[in-house]
Amino acid sequence: MQIKTDSITVATNGHGHVLDLTGEATHALDNSGLSEGHALLFVSGSTAALTTIEFEPGLIKDIGTALERLVPESIDYAHDATWGDGNGHSHIRASLLGPSLMIPFAKGRFLLGTWQQLILIDMDNRARNRSIVIQFTGV
Amino acid sequence: MQIKTDSITVATNGHGHVLDLTGEATHALDNSGLSEGHALLFVSGSTAALTTIEFEPGLIKDIGTALERLVPESIDYAHDATWGDGNGHSHIRASLLGPSLMIPFAKGRFLLGTWQQLILIDMDNRARNRSIVIQFTGV
Amino acid sequence: MQIKTDSITVATNGHGHVLDLTGEATHALDNSGLSEGHALLFVSGSTAALTTIEFEPGLIKDIGTALERLVPESIDYAHDATWGDGNGHSHIRASLLGPSLMIPFAKGRFLLGTWQQLILIDMDNRARNRSIVIQFTGV
Repeated sequence: MQIKTDSITVATNGHGHVLDLTGEATHALDNSGLSEGHALLFVSGSTAALTTIEFEPGLIKDIGTALERLVPESIDYAHDATWGDGNGHSHIRASLLGPSLMIPFAKGRFLLGTWQQLILIDMDNRARNRSIVIQFTGV
Repeated sequence: MQIKTDSITVATNGHGHVLDLTGEATHALDNSGLSEGHALLFVSGSTAALTTIEFEPGLIKDIGTALERLVPESIDYAHDATWGDGNGHSHIRASLLGPSLMIPFAKGRFLLGTWQQLILIDMDNRARNRSIVIQFTGV
Repeated sequence: MQIKTDSITVATNGHGHVLDLTGEATHALDNSGLSEGHALLFVSGSTAALTTIEFEPGLIKDIGTALERLVPESIDYAHDATWGDGNGHSHIRASLLGPSLMIPFAKGRFLLGTWQQLILIDMDNRARNRSIVIQFTGV
């Protein structure tokens, strides 16, 4: 059993930008040399989240629409009243989705569905550089 | 430390069908021979999700009602406009809940609450056969 | 590689009480003696959840407002009709957020953002004593 900690760095546009991390995560898995185990993906920061989706333009639009409907940008947030950041909605959306994602792998490949990609959603209200921890545990 | 990858196969009715996986997961834990560690449950595919709930008929109904209120089936989805699958809501619900779940165990037993069961929610708009990865890490 | 299972015990006020667990989790990490790996936090029980947030009074208020808007306490729940607990909303909120959280660490420190804390949200409609499993895997 071994543990290997790596990272993925991306530049985002913020404002709900959805990025497909599957390629970079697969590259990191190859580099790890491990064949069976799991990857923990974790985004440091409180205005972005990780999940999986079928990464196609329709659903990328739909998840943005859903997040805006559920946690609107335009309503009042106590966070914004205090800090003036204007990103109260970003924080709440990120907390509801969560910062961590676990993906199992076997025979050196992620056990994802064919139409299932690993995504980062940057909820913040500005462009950001994001570093995502990817930590492999296995043999 | 060892890692053991197993799977649970279920047939679902789709349409928000909620299945209790606790019995099969406990059986898989017994088979693993491990006593302390954690299980990663992961559903391959982008229209189902995993979480825990008190598995009783009232809450099974309530979670379906909540998902329909938050991500209605009847509104327009760009996914459906493109692909005609009619399951845009299934994808969005699944992405919001997430595909992975981690459960610790000690002394060979899951550290679940008495009224807390492991569930799969199949959000798709048709019956499906689902394979859930269950991967144990521990001693 | 080692695995160490510990716990954090807290007294909550229920009703959406948000508690910052970062200090106790850091103390448990120090006690584990591990330097690289991940912590699984898991709340046993079906009316509480774990996530991360910037722990400041504005956002603590905002997340409560969001949960009440998305899963209102005052609407009807089949759970309450059957059991009379009055905490149907607590269960649904907890299931949507989820009971488990994974946090990586390296050089003996959690890889959290500066403004990112580990929180328990107790959704139940009464004060509770909660035991949160914290299990470390690593070297």
